[in-house]
Amino acid sequence: MQPSLLSPSRRLRRTPFSEGVEAAGVKAYTIYNHMLLPTIFRSVQEDYHHLKTAVQVWDVACERQVEIRGPDAGRLVQMLTPRDLRKMTPGQCYYVPMVDETGGMLNDPVAVKLAEDRYWISIADSDLLLWIKGIVWGMRLDVMVEEPDVSPLAVQGPRADDLMAAVFGDAIRDVRFFRFGWFEFQGAPMLIARSGYSRQGGFEIYVEGTHLGMPLWNVLMEAGRGMDVHAGCPNLIERIEGGLLSYGNDMTRENTPHEAGLGKFCNTMTAIGCVGRDALLRVAKEGPIRQIRALAIDGAAVPPCLEAWTVTDDKGRRVGQVTSAAWSPDHRTNVAIAMIRMTHWDAGTTVLVHAPDGPREALVRESFFS
Amino acid sequence: MQPSLLSPSRRLRRTPFSEGVEAAGVKAYTIYNHMLLPTIFRSVQEDYHHLKTAVQVWDVACERQVEIRGPDAGRLVQMLTPRDLRKMTPGQCYYVPMVDETGGMLNDPVAVKLAEDRYWISIADSDLLLWIKGIVWGMRLDVMVEEPDVSPLAVQGPRADDLMAAVFGDAIRDVRFFRFGWFEFQGAPMLIARSGYSRQGGFEIYVEGTHLGMPLWNVLMEAGRGMDVHAGCPNLIERIEGGLLSYGNDMTRENTPHEAGLGKFCNTMTAIGCVGRDALLRVAKEGPIRQIRALAIDGAAVPPCLEAWTVTDDKGRRVGQVTSAAWSPDHRTNVAIAMIRMTHWDAGTTVLVHAPDGPREALVRESFFS
Repeated sequence: MQPSLLSPSRRLRRTPFSEGVEAAGVKAYTIYNHMLLPTIFRSVQEDYHHLKTAVQVWDVACERQVEIRGPDAGRLVQMLTPRDLRKMTPGQCYYVPMVDETGGMLNDPVAVKLAEDRYWISIADSDLLLWIKGIVWGMRLDVMVEEPDVSPLAVQGPRADDLMAAVFGDAIRDVRFFRFGWFEFQGAPMLIARSGYSRQGGFEIYVEGTHLGMPLWNVLMEAGRGMDVHAGCPNLIERIEGGLLSYGNDMTRENTPHEAGLGKFCNTMTAIGCVGRDALLRVAKEGPIRQIRALAIDGAAVPPCLEAWTVTDDKGRRVGQVTSAAWSPDHRTNVAIAMIRMTHWDAGTTVLVHAPDGPREALVRESFFS
Repeated sequence: MQPSLLSPSRRLRRTPFSEGVEAAGVKAYTIYNHMLLPTIFRSVQEDYHHLKTAVQVWDVACERQVEIRGPDAGRLVQMLTPRDLRKMTPGQCYYVPMVDETGGMLNDPVAVKLAEDRYWISIADSDLLLWIKGIVWGMRLDVMVEEPDVSPLAVQGPRADDLMAAVFGDAIRDVRFFRFGWFEFQGAPMLIARSGYSRQGGFEIYVEGTHLGMPLWNVLMEAGRGMDVHAGCPNLIERIEGGLLSYGNDMTRENTPHEAGLGKFCNTMTAIGCVGRDALLRVAKEGPIRQIRALAIDGAAVPPCLEAWTVTDDKGRRVGQVTSAAWSPDHRTNVAIAMIRMTHWDAGTTVLVHAPDGPREALVRESFFS
């Protein structure tokens, strides 16, 4: 499949930052939560090198929020995830796998606790709002569930702290990983968390109010002039190197969190009342029979991974699938995310990846690349 | 915004027909239910003329199905829509607006009744599966809710009956509008309904089993050689002319079915137990204060409608918005779908549409164009 054109329409929502993204010369998009998400500015490789050395501003408005507020909010959020939330306090962000009654993953959002009775769930690519509203209606819970006018803008890269300090002051440097603080921009309070979909460090600014989007974008671009700031976006190569999973690519409703390597975020014994607990108790005890692994795939640059590529042993028996892959300039190999059966998931195992241009040898690794 | 490239990935799912679509020279896509939906083959205008004169085969696999099966299936489906389903029998398809507890539209699917305890809900672009699963979990209903391996393939156009008869036999001609029958293809039963997202007539084949996708595609293409068959897709111009609404474009969760002109599918008095009944009872009684209208917009061809265009009166007061618009070669005007306040929704009213290239006069029409 050749790269194709995307037909724009209102249904593929623009964001508060789209004007800035276009002015910065965006070259391609994906669609995420019915919204435009840039994927390429200069080139995937050029964006990759720049992300690892400088600082980028990302339009990740497509990380839509589900706001949950009201007397039953805490009970509901605990119902939604097998992670034990009892110690979560306002000011914290928790990565929370969410599953259906069979333990199949529905989303892997970040929960942001604003107050004891108020959360934002910052979602991956599925309409989690509908799942939550369905449960609330079915159980007649006392909560309000809405998609607020909140659009995250990420600042990522080794110079992220410097750029953010230039705009929000040095106090931003004290925000710890997966914590947030409130900062002011043009008189409006902004929730800023140390988080983001890269391994290069940085922040996510939860911009509340569409009208503040472009003013903030412009101020960041202006303040970053001397820091080689550029518009960027989640980078395919960097996220695979770092083992950052993508819901819909690397795991789907077919998979449990344990298969996705997220067992450490599941406290099935203590997360009483969560959906999927019955199913996951067994998985937690016995362990999964397949799991996410990092692969290094031999040969020249692989083509884009548009469908799961079958992984076999040397006798042609299916032992898994590759779901994300790209050539890594820094590691001089193809880096990949795969779901591998336990018979072949040990580090050092050689497997065959059946890419569209033919089979290639690949090595199962102990861990991801960065 | 210039047409942009779409970055492909596994998350933007390919369909059982993608190979045929590519071989037919697809030029652009949109994303619909996390899946590729072709939007242009030769050009939007060429596809439009062809659709109105010949016959096309459409990959609408993105109309994903939600299968509901089990003892509580009938009760659940009635709960999901304000349309009274008591007279629905197996073999029928019903267009069923679905709303949340506030009466806001969540989807406008077609419900296909396979048996008293088994339905397929053929969905528009939102993860309705999650809404339904949430309700089922919250209420502990006795039903199975899944996305089956079913991918609709549409055959649309004035010669659709001839092409379908050539493949499935003349009995297909007897299938009435929004009814379905079972036909055989290569030994497999196929549910075929007289329905589809155009005003040119035709069928939707619910292809059960990915492996049957390309064989059926090829047989249809071969059988249609003498009928000028071509790969096609829902056509922007034709659907606006015909007043076929697009969820996410023309109505969203902001709108009630009554605003969307779908009040005739809401039997709020008798659809006892449906979600949103409390909210819709009032709307049904008083009527909406804004509603979908057809507009004819003056001037040369409008640019693509990427965001709602404000509609005002001649004093600049906001009276609505345009959400879909295109130049119609047959009607020699710009055809549009708009949501208009009751003060200005009477046929013959002149309003101003604020398109990105400037304001234009537009006429509110009595009905759509075809």
